[in-house]
Amino acid sequence: MILPHAFDYAGTAVFAVSAVLAAGRKQLDLLGAVIIALVTSTGGGTLRDLLLNRTPFWFTDTGYLVTILVVACTTVLVLRWRHPSERLLEIADAVGVALFSISGARIAEAAGLPGLIVVVLATITGTFGGLLRDVLCNEIPLLLRPGTIYGVVVIAGATLYVVLQSLGVSRDIAALAGMLLIASLRMVAIARNISLPALRIREPGRGDD
Amino acid sequence: MILPHAFDYAGTAVFAVSAVLAAGRKQLDLLGAVIIALVTSTGGGTLRDLLLNRTPFWFTDTGYLVTILVVACTTVLVLRWRHPSERLLEIADAVGVALFSISGARIAEAAGLPGLIVVVLATITGTFGGLLRDVLCNEIPLLLRPGTIYGVVVIAGATLYVVLQSLGVSRDIAALAGMLLIASLRMVAIARNISLPALRIREPGRGDD
Amino acid sequence: MILPHAFDYAGTAVFAVSAVLAAGRKQLDLLGAVIIALVTSTGGGTLRDLLLNRTPFWFTDTGYLVTILVVACTTVLVLRWRHPSERLLEIADAVGVALFSISGARIAEAAGLPGLIVVVLATITGTFGGLLRDVLCNEIPLLLRPGTIYGVVVIAGATLYVVLQSLGVSRDIAALAGMLLIASLRMVAIARNISLPALRIREPGRGDD
Repeated sequence: MILPHAFDYAGTAVFAVSAVLAAGRKQLDLLGAVIIALVTSTGGGTLRDLLLNRTPFWFTDTGYLVTILVVACTTVLVLRWRHPSERLLEIADAVGVALFSISGARIAEAAGLPGLIVVVLATITGTFGGLLRDVLCNEIPLLLRPGTIYGVVVIAGATLYVVLQSLGVSRDIAALAGMLLIASLRMVAIARNISLPALRIREPGRGDD
Repeated sequence: MILPHAFDYAGTAVFAVSAVLAAGRKQLDLLGAVIIALVTSTGGGTLRDLLLNRTPFWFTDTGYLVTILVVACTTVLVLRWRHPSERLLEIADAVGVALFSISGARIAEAAGLPGLIVVVLATITGTFGGLLRDVLCNEIPLLLRPGTIYGVVVIAGATLYVVLQSLGVSRDIAALAGMLLIASLRMVAIARNISLPALRIREPGRGDD
Repeated sequence: MILPHAFDYAGTAVFAVSAVLAAGRKQLDLLGAVIIALVTSTGGGTLRDLLLNRTPFWFTDTGYLVTILVVACTTVLVLRWRHPSERLLEIADAVGVALFSISGARIAEAAGLPGLIVVVLATITGTFGGLLRDVLCNEIPLLLRPGTIYGVVVIAGATLYVVLQSLGVSRDIAALAGMLLIASLRMVAIARNISLPALRIREPGRGDD
C-alpha cells in the first residue's frame, strides 16, 4: 500500500515547516534554518532506525532530503511576507507528530516487537525530531514543558493503534484512528490551552523533612 | 549467574528515582518526570548497545521499562509527602552510576574489546543517562560541573575492574570491587565536598599573549 | 594509501585542542576538558559510523583515544602559560572540520551511497563533534550561530569533492581540493568577519497577519 509512504512525506514536510518557523523566531540564517529542518524532520525516524538496526530511512530514498530542502526554502521565502504565529508552529508540529508516531509504530510492529516497545518507539519517532529542534533553538522542549498535553497524547494514539489491531481491526483503519486521535487531541489542547498539573513538591523549610 | 541482572535492575530503579527528583526540582509534570526517568535509566545502556551494534537491552526484556514506570510513579507519590534533598539525588545517582558502569564494563569485555575501550564504554554506560537527565533539565551536567569528583571516580572503578581481572581475580569479585570503589568514593566526595581544581587560565590582558 | 589515516589523526588532534580551549573558557576542570576533547574529536565520526552501521572507528584503533588524551593534557599544560584567543579556537576548528568532512565523504562514498547522502554524511562527520562541544559548553553552536559562514563552507567542500570525482579527477586530488576549500574559506570568513544575512522575519504587530 502506498499510503504509509505518503504519510511519511507529509510528516517530513510539516516538520520542516515547523523547524523553519522555530528557527525564524530565533533569527537564525537560511542555512541554520535548513539544518534545523533536516534535524527535525529526520531525527525521530533516524533514532528509531538506529535502535532497530535498520538503514536510516533517508539513505535509501533521497526524496526525503529533497523534500526537506524544497519545503524549508519555500517556507523561508513565505516568512518574508508573513509573520509566523506561535499557533501555526504548534499546529504544524501536531500534524507532524501524528503522522510520524503511527509510522514509527508500524515499523516497530513489522520488526515483531511487543506492544509496550511499539508504543515507546512510536513516541520516539514522533517526538525526538521536535525535541532536537527545541534543544538546538535553546528552548525548553515542547515535549517536557510543564503542563503541556503532548507526550500523553502520542502515547494514547500509539496505544489505540496497538489495541485496535489486537481487537481485529485492520492495520490501515487502526493507523488512521491513531493519527486522528493524536492530531485532534493536540489541536483541542492547543485551542483550549488545557494542561496537566505540574509535579507538586513541598518547598524546603515548609516540610517536616 | 543471576547477579548481573539484579544489579542492572537495581541501577535502573535508582536512576529512575534520581530522574524524578531532578524533574521535581524543575516543576515538570508527571509525564515529563516519567519521560526523564525513561531517558536517564536507559540512556547509558542504549548508547553502549548502539556502539556495540547490540539490540538495545530494553527491547529484549520489557521488565526494565515496567520497572522504570512503577518506580517513577511511586517516587512521584512519595514526593507529595517529603521534599527531596539535593543530597538524596546525589546518593541515588552515585549508586546508579556504580551499578551501571561495571555492568557496561562486563558487556564491553564480553565483546572482546581492549581494556582502554572497556573503561570508556563503562564510563559511557554509567554516565550518559545522567548527562541526558541534566541536559533535559537544563542543568550543567554533574559529570562536567567544575571541580566535581565524578568522571574520575567512574574511570577509577572501571580501571580497577579491568586490572584486578588481569591479575587473576575472578570476574565477580572484580565487579564487586569496582562497584564499591565507585559508590564509596562518590559518597565520600559528596559528604566532604571534595573537588578538583578548575582548569586555570590566564586572564586576557594579564598574559604576555 | 596512508594519507587518509594521517589526516584523521591530524583532525583528531586539532579538534582535541579546540575542545580544551573551549573548556578552558568555561573554567572546567582537567577531567571535564578531557571528556569534552573525547566527545568533540570522536562525535562526528561516531555518528557517521552508527548511521553506516560500521564499528566506531576508535574501537578498532585505540591510537585515536591515546592521541586525544595526550594532546588534551599537553594543551592543558600549555594553557597555564598562555591565554587562548577566540581566534586560535576558530582556526583549530577550521582545520579539524576540513580534515574530518572529507574523511567522512570518503567513507560514505566507499559505502556506495549517492552524492547527496555523501555530502550530508561529510557535513555530519565534520560538524557534529563541534556541535556537541558547544552544546556541552552551553554555547550557541558555531554551526548555527546566525550569520556565521560555517555549514555552507563544509557543504561546498564536500560537493567539490563529489563533483571533481564525477569529472574524472582522482580521489586523492579531489580530497585535497575539498579540504583546502573548506579550510581556506573558513579562514577568510574568520579573518574578514564575513557573515550571511539572518533570517528576516516580520515583527508581530507590524505585519498584516
